[in-house]
Amino acid sequence: MITERTVDTFLDDLASGAPTPGGGSAAAVMGAMGAALVSMVCNVTIGKKGYEAADAEMKSVRTESESVRRRLTAMVAADVAAFDGLMAAYRLPKQSEEDKSRRAEAIELNLRAATESPLDCARACAEVIALAKRAAVCGYLGVISDAGVGVLAAHAALRSAALNVYINVPSLKDRTFASLATAEIEKLLDHSAAETEAVFALVRDKLGKP
Amino acid sequence: MITERTVDTFLDDLASGAPTPGGGSAAAVMGAMGAALVSMVCNVTIGKKGYEAADAEMKSVRTESESVRRRLTAMVAADVAAFDGLMAAYRLPKQSEEDKSRRAEAIELNLRAATESPLDCARACAEVIALAKRAAVCGYLGVISDAGVGVLAAHAALRSAALNVYINVPSLKDRTFASLATAEIEKLLDHSAAETEAVFALVRDKLGKP
Repeated sequence: MITERTVDTFLDDLASGAPTPGGGSAAAVMGAMGAALVSMVCNVTIGKKGYEAADAEMKSVRTESESVRRRLTAMVAADVAAFDGLMAAYRLPKQSEEDKSRRAEAIELNLRAATESPLDCARACAEVIALAKRAAVCGYLGVISDAGVGVLAAHAALRSAALNVYINVPSLKDRTFASLATAEIEKLLDHSAAETEAVFALVRDKLGKP
Repeated sequence: MITERTVDTFLDDLASGAPTPGGGSAAAVMGAMGAALVSMVCNVTIGKKGYEAADAEMKSVRTESESVRRRLTAMVAADVAAFDGLMAAYRLPKQSEEDKSRRAEAIELNLRAATESPLDCARACAEVIALAKRAAVCGYLGVISDAGVGVLAAHAALRSAALNVYINVPSLKDRTFASLATAEIEKLLDHSAAETEAVFALVRDKLGKP
């Protein structure tokens, strides 16, 4: 599993000329970092003196942030698998008519998977953004900046995932699926941008204007 | 070294209630991911048929992106050290007048280090953004989305570092340093926002409108 590599090795692998891991895996790691920081805010706040009223809310947020973190961590490897599957399909033989038709079918199937993978990452990141907002509202002031970093990480991951949707969409034969995927990612982008800026502004206000 | 932990362990440590690693380390990792993705675009482009004209530029970008990646990777641990130093200063005895004065001096010194650390991270991320732009302009089209992910990661890291500057600035006694640090981070934020959006738009255009 790619997430069993050290951070140093992961960065080296990202920097290398090998096609994977690439931006898709980086996006999933960023999203998972966002979820982890939300969990951190909850963990610090739960049981904190003066924050008793936030206890139930922070526990509820933590359950969700840990669940979405697990999904995002699994996507780091899933993105590599989707990319490798697509490359394998492109390498299929294309001599006979039968070859060509089988290859085209395999490409379409794998393009669909390589579009669904970042789309799923973007959906998970949108959840992290909503959770970061709840953490920023109720969390312990001493770690409120971590809710801010969490929302920024999740938003960068969502936009990164969008780029990975855009790569594959033009090649899809199924234009209905292509349109649905594009419409969904656009909606996620629009909504998350405003929400992220609201959380960033809230955190910045709580830190006090310098 | 914290970056010798696995990605899974790093995420677990981030999520835990322990104060470090926190948002500062997450920011440095995001910045390093951005630099690594820029290097990847260079590595794939160098020697690519049809991209001979970009060779020298991509080699020059890679030298810089690898250098800034090393700096950012080192900051992951440096941020933990700065935070731990500050916490240790706050825990110093404060009984006698001499204690109090020694403690105040140690806090000021460590607050300054804890402000310079994210400021340095933000400077490095601004360099990554400029390098991602060059990679997006000249890089191989097949990995151009990775330049886009790189710029988003670096920008999220820069804004995260800014939050970590804002945390410490209000407590600084040296208001001249506080003003200089604030002015520099504001300038980095302003400039990087426009530059990031320009790179994102360029990458999106190159991917073709869906």
